[in-house]
Amino acid sequence: MKLNDSATHGSATALLPHWADALVSRRSSAVASSAIRDLLAITRRPEIISLAGGLPDVSAMPHEWLRELLADALGTPGALQYSATEGDPELRAVLAGWESTWVGRPITDDDVLVTTGSQQALDLLGKALLDPGDVVIVEDPAYVGALQAFHLAGATLLAVPQDGNGLRTDLLEAQLAGGVRPKLVYLTPTFHNPAGTSLSPIRRAHVAALAERYGFLIVEDDAYRLLPFGADAPQPIAAHTDRVVRLGTFSKILSPGLRVGWLTAPGPIMAALVRVKQATDLHTSTLAQVVLGRAAADTHRLEAHLAPVRALYAARAAHLVGALRGRFGERLALTEPAGGMFCWATFADGTSVADLLPRALAAGVAFVPGPAFSPSGGTNASALRLCFASVNEQRLTQAVERLHSAVDG
Amino acid sequence: MKLNDSATHGSATALLPHWADALVSRRSSAVASSAIRDLLAITRRPEIISLAGGLPDVSAMPHEWLRELLADALGTPGALQYSATEGDPELRAVLAGWESTWVGRPITDDDVLVTTGSQQALDLLGKALLDPGDVVIVEDPAYVGALQAFHLAGATLLAVPQDGNGLRTDLLEAQLAGGVRPKLVYLTPTFHNPAGTSLSPIRRAHVAALAERYGFLIVEDDAYRLLPFGADAPQPIAAHTDRVVRLGTFSKILSPGLRVGWLTAPGPIMAALVRVKQATDLHTSTLAQVVLGRAAADTHRLEAHLAPVRALYAARAAHLVGALRGRFGERLALTEPAGGMFCWATFADGTSVADLLPRALAAGVAFVPGPAFSPSGGTNASALRLCFASVNEQRLTQAVERLHSAVDG
Repeated sequence: MKLNDSATHGSATALLPHWADALVSRRSSAVASSAIRDLLAITRRPEIISLAGGLPDVSAMPHEWLRELLADALGTPGALQYSATEGDPELRAVLAGWESTWVGRPITDDDVLVTTGSQQALDLLGKALLDPGDVVIVEDPAYVGALQAFHLAGATLLAVPQDGNGLRTDLLEAQLAGGVRPKLVYLTPTFHNPAGTSLSPIRRAHVAALAERYGFLIVEDDAYRLLPFGADAPQPIAAHTDRVVRLGTFSKILSPGLRVGWLTAPGPIMAALVRVKQATDLHTSTLAQVVLGRAAADTHRLEAHLAPVRALYAARAAHLVGALRGRFGERLALTEPAGGMFCWATFADGTSVADLLPRALAAGVAFVPGPAFSPSGGTNASALRLCFASVNEQRLTQAVERLHSAVDG
Repeated sequence: MKLNDSATHGSATALLPHWADALVSRRSSAVASSAIRDLLAITRRPEIISLAGGLPDVSAMPHEWLRELLADALGTPGALQYSATEGDPELRAVLAGWESTWVGRPITDDDVLVTTGSQQALDLLGKALLDPGDVVIVEDPAYVGALQAFHLAGATLLAVPQDGNGLRTDLLEAQLAGGVRPKLVYLTPTFHNPAGTSLSPIRRAHVAALAERYGFLIVEDDAYRLLPFGADAPQPIAAHTDRVVRLGTFSKILSPGLRVGWLTAPGPIMAALVRVKQATDLHTSTLAQVVLGRAAADTHRLEAHLAPVRALYAARAAHLVGALRGRFGERLALTEPAGGMFCWATFADGTSVADLLPRALAAGVAFVPGPAFSPSGGTNASALRLCFASVNEQRLTQAVERLHSAVDG
């Protein structure tokens, strides 16, 4: 028994002890740290204009309104106490109302589960629905956090390409007809991260019909629905079938830092999701739910808050697209986002973005290389994701100039 | 393609569609909903005095102080933005200071990971360290949330009994000598939930020596450290070895509703934990971390807040123990808690608490039956957990009277 020898060890981190390496699970080794996250550490340098992160603009976070709501909420004694795994009743009621309107059929409070951000919804789906080896079909490109969550669940990921109208549902159908049997098909059909696309209405109906024919569940990640630049977001896939788990979040419209999202799910799936959420974090922040429930219920003020945010993002998106067109012309194929926070650009001449990135950083501009959004890392070698949400127009112009100089450098 | 037929479906929950049942994962089916949680739904009825929940008293949640800190924190623009997976730098620095003092060797900021409550720490450990079939040794009885998290990770749980001095480390050693090779040994060595025990200093050193000899990792869940009734909490197991992941939480001392905890871990394990936390919920609430970092740094005010909470819990614990002794005498073997929120009682005559519970509820008192804290559900058939933290002394007396009438009824 050596009681005190460890007092001389110093930081455990500095030692990198061998014994601990051996304890790490196989499945956690299957999850790579996000390339975006690693890149963000570099792009915090002030001389770099970063279009790499996915940060909402600070104007999308109404500090004064939330300060008022927080002060009010603390008048409720229960706001600091443990609460139900399913979520705050008032918040669930407001969200059920939103979802009913969007999908065009009644979604009850019991169909809504409040989550600790939308990322947790993906983690819970992995736990509640996926056993190792289950097949999940994702879009190529796809949201990186979903790839991580499904990899962590031990799923086998299969990517189906997108085009300018979103997922190629004809290619999905070909896979299904060829015998592939996914448990889940994961899509971000509206104002896609990273692709900037929206799935066309015909394809929404098509993927819904495929879900009913082949028995899979659609996960419809709808994080950007309330950020359209012109017309409202298209009707959800869930309008066409109930074989859908829908994901929503307050991160893009009120605050990502509060970590509150939600999902809707059919009953038996909901029961499993609640059970695994209980084991995952008991429940989502009571105080944050009370605050966001009241914000979401105040439709008038929420709309007054969102209108200028949408206008700002729309102007920045248009500016970025214009500047890229002006500098690169036909060399760069672009999505023209109709909402959301991202523009996806692909070099027509096969320029390698992996080679470009260090030159771009040296020139003072950052982006996320396309392969980061591919489950295998093996596609999108000439594509890049550009986030315009939190960079003003003057800086967007500078960023495009720098990118251009890096390409020709 | 049927575009609108689903408009007639009504609530998906009401349908309980068969197709969805088939999609639920095998591992989620291995996680039972906590018996405590199901019981809590019943015990919300006002006529029942509930000693079943594990709720801190409302006086343990300083509403006015937190209101001030929240208002201040919203002056920091970043408080509503995305933030680092590892946690808020100021909060990590304060926690590293606390942990260094407790374990008696330097714990650096990099050794600290902020978690979305302590329950998330258990979930992350499951993901980062456990592959299906890995063996985890737990105490019998043990914290229910840990049993759920490790079951969800696919672990094989093995229970080693406790006595009045905590885990029987001699029985643990016998298991190890007999060839059992756990990856983790999970303990709540200080002011145990549910057992009310604390592991003796000799056993702390013993389990640390066993970890070094047999190569397992200790998970030291230290949720109640700052709630001693007399002398300070004993020195952590981590004072004896660095083969420890320590878990802490703000839930019992400032607010459970904010969902903020932390862990400390050796470097290679920390890297895996950060990777899986990123896939789990990106990061813990930025705002809550800023607020709790400032509260934790204000040692003087924190101590002024905690002193009356400790005194209140100590008085209630003493009152409950006195009332039980007075009513039941030798029929009920009790732990006398030296801190924390729980008293564990065992009927010497083999009374079945499963049979007792409905009679107790009918008499107007609730408790959690002992088998809920057993990984197999097969032990503690005559034991019950009683939480005294949030029930005043008059009601505690009434609760014991009602329990007595139920036993003799």
